[in-house]
Amino acid sequence: MREVFQQELQEVQERLVEIASLVARSIEKAVQAFNGSDVALAEEVISDDNEIDRAAVELDELAITILARQQPVARDLRIVVSTLRISASLERMGDMSTHIAQLARYRFPDKVIPKSVRPTFADMGRLDVAIANKLVELLRTENLALAEDIRNEDDAIDALHLTVFEKVLGEKWKGETVDTVDATLASRYHERFADHAVSIAKKVQYLATGDWVPESA
Amino acid sequence: MREVFQQELQEVQERLVEIASLVARSIEKAVQAFNGSDVALAEEVISDDNEIDRAAVELDELAITILARQQPVARDLRIVVSTLRISASLERMGDMSTHIAQLARYRFPDKVIPKSVRPTFADMGRLDVAIANKLVELLRTENLALAEDIRNEDDAIDALHLTVFEKVLGEKWKGETVDTVDATLASRYHERFADHAVSIAKKVQYLATGDWVPESA
Repeated sequence: MREVFQQELQEVQERLVEIASLVARSIEKAVQAFNGSDVALAEEVISDDNEIDRAAVELDELAITILARQQPVARDLRIVVSTLRISASLERMGDMSTHIAQLARYRFPDKVIPKSVRPTFADMGRLDVAIANKLVELLRTENLALAEDIRNEDDAIDALHLTVFEKVLGEKWKGETVDTVDATLASRYHERFADHAVSIAKKVQYLATGDWVPESA
Repeated sequence: MREVFQQELQEVQERLVEIASLVARSIEKAVQAFNGSDVALAEEVISDDNEIDRAAVELDELAITILARQQPVARDLRIVVSTLRISASLERMGDMSTHIAQLARYRFPDKVIPKSVRPTFADMGRLDVAIANKLVELLRTENLALAEDIRNEDDAIDALHLTVFEKVLGEKWKGETVDTVDATLASRYHERFADHAVSIAKKVQYLATGDWVPESA
């Protein structure tokens, strides 16, 4: 029984890593589709999101089955509860990739956003991809130094998010209304993607140390 | 032991209702602050959000303690797992109220958005408040007819969300860039608030029937 349980916990962790890998691939493609106005790639991100959703639901079912059958306590219980929280955040990260891809698709064949903010979005996209890849490693290794990296990269994204608004609201902004809408939404989606990663990093920290870091901290 | 457990489950439910009531008050004030450019009320919403965050964290702690000590199964387990999910969504609804209030504060003493979209936002706000109040009742009574109402009102909000974009991107739009940014963000926050309510309604349905409705459905 005990051995089965350890195998199940192992499987939970592997599935989290798997879903995080799907999310990393989806943000990578979404960023490329957004920056390069690649509508085929955007469609791929949108249709692949089902896979992330399904994997998250299946993992939740597994976690609930473990709670019912194994009645874990202490660290084992923390793993299972954290799994439920982390899978919800991963699912939302997949949604953010999808929203970014949708912006690319709506405006095709035009570029989504005017030249003046493209470098800022390229930076945000690069950081989101880096964060997603680090998240996969963090879930695989529980190396908390990666949690720290993710928080720092999130700070950098927040700064870029402000830059977008400064540019859009600045005197030199030549964008049309549709550009303003797209830049506002795109910036928000890039920023939220990173927020969810930070939220997961906190949960991994809780898992590793037992110290609960509230969502709002 | 059994009796203690039933009392604890009762307390979990009462606390969910309590947090939902705080959220209902916060969206009511946020909508009023936003539509009436009331900066004092906006400040109140922003500072009161701590209370929602704290209550959600405390409820999570209680739920995890129950999992560890009572090792619930079947419906009892569903209640505790759903509590963790619902408290996360309520916490996010409080964040959406705060974001709406922040928009009112940033632009003070100007009105947040131009005349042409004010009636649309008044409608969205009214629906968000109605949804929040129904959510309190749904959590209190588990009357699934309210879940249906919430879904219908969410559909109405989604339609208004599209109306905002049609207006903003229409030929008659006279707003400045800052108005476009505000309308885009405000519409997104109003719409997300309702999404979270729908997501909670699904969880209550799961609780009542045992049928899991995936997040993405």
